[in-house]
Order: sequence, then structure tokens, then C-alpha cells
Amino acid sequence: MRRIVAFLILAAVTFAAEEIRNSALAAGLKPIPSNQFEIDKLVDTDPENKLSRQKIELGKMLYFDPRLSSSNLISCNTCHNLGLGGDDNVPAAIGHLWTQNPKHLNSPTVYNAVFNEKQMWDGRFASLEEQAGGPMVNDAEMASSHELILERIEKIPGYQRLFKKVFGRINYISMPNVQKAIAAFERKLITPSPLDAYLLGEDDAITNQEKRGLTLFIQKGCTACHSGYGLGGGMQPFPLNGTYKYADIGGFTGNEQNLTRVPTLRNITQTEPYFHNGAVTTLKEAVTIMAQTQLGIELSPNETDDIVTFLETLKGKKPKIIYPDLPDYE
Amino acid sequence: MRRIVAFLILAAVTFAAEEIRNSALAAGLKPIPSNQFEIDKLVDTDPENKLSRQKIELGKMLYFDPRLSSSNLISCNTCHNLGLGGDDNVPAAIGHLWTQNPKHLNSPTVYNAVFNEKQMWDGRFASLEEQAGGPMVNDAEMASSHELILERIEKIPGYQRLFKKVFGRINYISMPNVQKAIAAFERKLITPSPLDAYLLGEDDAITNQEKRGLTLFIQKGCTACHSGYGLGGGMQPFPLNGTYKYADIGGFTGNEQNLTRVPTLRNITQTEPYFHNGAVTTLKEAVTIMAQTQLGIELSPNETDDIVTFLETLKGKKPKIIYPDLPDYE
Repeated sequence: MRRIVAFLILAAVTFAAEEIRNSALAAGLKPIPSNQFEIDKLVDTDPENKLSRQKIELGKMLYFDPRLSSSNLISCNTCHNLGLGGDDNVPAAIGHLWTQNPKHLNSPTVYNAVFNEKQMWDGRFASLEEQAGGPMVNDAEMASSHELILERIEKIPGYQRLFKKVFGRINYISMPNVQKAIAAFERKLITPSPLDAYLLGEDDAITNQEKRGLTLFIQKGCTACHSGYGLGGGMQPFPLNGTYKYADIGGFTGNEQNLTRVPTLRNITQTEPYFHNGAVTTLKEAVTIMAQTQLGIELSPNETDDIVTFLETLKGKKPKIIYPDLPDYE
Repeated sequence: MRRIVAFLILAAVTFAAEEIRNSALAAGLKPIPSNQFEIDKLVDTDPENKLSRQKIELGKMLYFDPRLSSSNLISCNTCHNLGLGGDDNVPAAIGHLWTQNPKHLNSPTVYNAVFNEKQMWDGRFASLEEQAGGPMVNDAEMASSHELILERIEKIPGYQRLFKKVFGRINYISMPNVQKAIAAFERKLITPSPLDAYLLGEDDAITNQEKRGLTLFIQKGCTACHSGYGLGGGMQPFPLNGTYKYADIGGFTGNEQNLTRVPTLRNITQTEPYFHNGAVTTLKEAVTIMAQTQLGIELSPNETDDIVTFLETLKGKKPKIIYPDLPDYE
């Protein structure tokens, strides 16, 4: 008898796990595949920038190289720190001469950014390749210029050799190639998490409370914006309901169509402070406000807790990165 | 007959290589050993801070963690960049709020810093352990405070666990322990170079021109200050001869005894700009001025070239560093 009860409970739990998984998939959540070949198919999608080991290695060097900034002090990794959540831990980015981002925009994470439909909060760049050229020449970020960047790279024999190997014989050191290499590295910054294991069929990869949180996440409508591989990354109107509590902070209200890029929820426990202006420090508060302004609902404290607990299943495994030994000037 | 000539030439070259090596050793140059056990004996010298794998790993995390700065943006690695020459590439360090080092002091390299007799340009810290506490709480550098640092570390469960493992049960999170961990990591930042291979007996590890440069380096008297494992690192009066061309830049003329720490020459091709105020950009100019102000001599252009070529043999192999995945706040 005990055995039968145990079997029935197990069957019920398995059934529930299966049912929640199916709802999640039906709501548009997509798991990062578990094998590298499948992941590569997902991220190696730009026919103009096919990935190669050497290109990714070159991109890694450039990503970590502060000499791409006019001051020689700021690299891509300064604001998109791969040791943290792929961002900084400040409300608004701080760049050249300690200038705060003029629109008080919070740096988005570079991890899983390849899954974003568009890049930048206003979606003005279509791809990581396009985006990579932006911060380097922005006066409030790396404050460099295309001329200065290329001039410095030309003076570094190690880079000359690598660019030639990766991009062929003619005009191999160019801004499009610098951007392609950096984006190639960024395309590989993928962090599979327990949620992916669960969505791929492993019932016990997430706990019961986390499954409850996932169920609420679906039922309350969070998946309307937070879906796909990134659980976010698309463009949406903002705010949908009510008044945004922090509308007076910063000058950002979306692009001309009033659309704002939805942040990915992957590794969200590591990317505080939250929102496009970094005004909110806890996930609990962020979830509460999102429910109010985007869904027009009040969550109970228990519901909020369950959703926050679910969000922790999005903390992923980061790729191992050997810190680059940057080539020196001739 | 040809064979005999070839043999005699070989014998003469071998003899010369041996003779120059002996002069170098007699002048006080010391090779970094080729095996790890011997290196460890050289660097694991603080009985109060014995090295362990876990302590070094913890130290690496802290070294790369910008959350030790008040802004959350500056880490040890910002000014002592391990991807570059172990320093920044600017004349004077730039820190919190983009403040330039008030004495216009150039950041020294952290690579091989364990071989320095004392730390800081004025030698005010006896050890890496002592030094590690300085920049974190300097208003022009990381601008933090002991309270803030410990408060942040306390809030990071991953750090709590690691400190406990490394430093035992009681009061394991403390500034002395933070400094010990960072210094443990720094003690391992050793870069054996072709010069070491040569000094250890490998005749062909450096070229003939490099040997000529080494001979001049000894004969002209450079080794009076630039000797030991670091080819530098001791405290010396400065300037010895003549007027220092850049005496008007910055406020640094040594400590109360008019003594200044001699920079290491290891990886010197990667640590431009040169001198304690970073006023000189080429190695050629630096060698010329040093000969004038410290030795009171004029080098011929060929002599300068040979010495500069010799200095390139000090570019070493950096340890492989896996970029740390920093633990997050609870």
C-alpha cells in the first residue's frame, strides 16, 4: 500500500513537472541546448561573421584591452564585467573622465546578449557586431575614435598578425573587423542554467517552489515579454499600465515608437541594480513594480517570493575564460 | 681544417657565453629558477602568510573584484593590469572620480613585485601584504574604507565560505586576511624570461647582440642598482648625478632619506611610460637619461641600442590566469 501511494505521488509530481514544462514551452520559454554543437547553431548566425576559434580569441583580447579607450583605462569589460553578471554594479554606467551615462542608463549584461532581438535599450543596433562599435567612440564611455583605435592596433605587431590570420590579406585592420571579432567573442558568452536543464526534461533540476514560481510567472503573464532564449530581449512599450514609479529618474522613455528593450532575466540575481535606470536594488521590489506597471496587478507576498525564487534558476554556468596576455606595442 | 676552425669558433663562443654569464652572476643578477618547487621556495617566504591553492584562488578573486572600491568600478587589476605589463599604460595612475595620483606617480608593475626589497616608490611598506591595504583606502585610488570593504565581503556568501576555509573559524573576515589573500596571489605573479634561461646555463637563450647589451649593462654599472631577481627593487638615492630632467614634474623626490625604489626591469618593454612620474615614453630615452643622471656617462647610440635589445630578454612568460567568476551578494 505504501509503495502504491509513493508511486502515485511520484507519478503526480512527474505529471506536474511535465505539465509545468509544457506550459512554459507553450508560453514561449526556450531552453539553451545542452550540447555545444546545438548552441553553436543558435549563436553562429551571422553569415558575414562566421565564428572561428582564432576570431573568438582575438575578440576576447580586444574585449579586455583598455587601449581601445582614449584614456587607455577602460575596456568593454569595465562596464560589462565578465567576473560579475556581465555588467557593472552601478545604477548608471560611468565612463571617460568619470562621466555618468547622460540618460542614466544602466549597463545591460553581455551574457546571452546574442539572444536579444536588438541591441541597446532603444534597440538602435540590429546586432552585436553593430553594437560593438558604439561604446568605444561614445564620449561618456570609452571616448575613443575610429582613427585612434586603428592607429593603436596598427602599432601592435601581435594584433597585426592576428587580424591578418583571421580577416585575410587586404585591409584586415578595420573597424568592421574590430567589431566582428568582439561580437564573435560575445556570441559565445552563453550561460546554461538549471531552468534549461528542467525545460530539456530533467524534472528535478529545479525545486518545487521554483516550479511554483515558474507557474505564476506564466499565469500572471510575465512571459508576454520575458520569453525566448533570453527570457527577454524583445522590444516592448513601456510602461503599459499605470505610472512608472521612476519615470522622473533619467531621460529614457524608449525609442521613437515608445519601445524599450526588455532585459534578459538570465543571471538576474547578479545584475542588480535593476531597470533601465538602475533605480531598484532588490529583485523583490523589481518584480512587484513590474507586475503593477506592466501587468496592472498586485502580487501577494507569497507570489512575489515564489517568482523571485524561480528567477534564481536562471543563474547560469559561465564559460571559462583565460585572461588574455595582450600583445604589446612594437 | 674547416672542422677545426668551426670547433675553435664554437669553443670561443661557448667560452664567451660562459664568461658573460659569470660576470652577470658576479654583478648580482639572479635567475628565476626553472622549476616550480624552487620558485615557490623563493616567493613563499612570509611565515605569517604561507601560500595555499585556496588562498591564492581567493586572492585572485579579490584582486579582480571592483566591489572592493567605493564606486564598485575599480579593482587592483585596473591599475595593475595583468593582461598588460602588470600596470596601466598611463603616466600617473587615475583612480576614484578620475583623480590623478597627487604626486604624479606611475603605477609600478605587480609582476615580480615579490622580489622588491620594499613596496611603493618611497618604500614605505615592507611587504606585499602591507601594500595590499594601501590602494583600497586611498582617496585617489579605490577610495574605500576598511568598514565598507568588510561590510561588502560579509554580504557575499561565496566569500564568507572561502575566507572561513582559508583563515579558520574566528574573525576570518578581516582586513589583514583580505591583504594576505591578495598578497598570496601576487606572490605567484612571476615571469621567467630568456635571460633566466641564459643565466641558468642555456647559451643560446639570448642572441649575441643581447649578450653584448648585457656586457655593457654590467660594465657601465647599471647592475649597481638593477640586480637581484628583479633587476631592481632595492632602495637608492636619486638622482645620483646631474639634474634629473623631469624633476619639475610631480612632487616625488624619494623618501625622507632621499631614497627611491628602483623599478624592476623585468617586462620593461611592456610597462611604458617610464620613470616614477611616467614622463618618458621610449626605452631608448630612458636608458640614455639613466646613464646620464645615475652613472654620469654618455652612451653611444650603438651602446644604447645594445642595452635596449638586452632589456627585451627580460620579457617573461606570464602565469596562466583563469578569469574569476566572482561570488554574488546574498
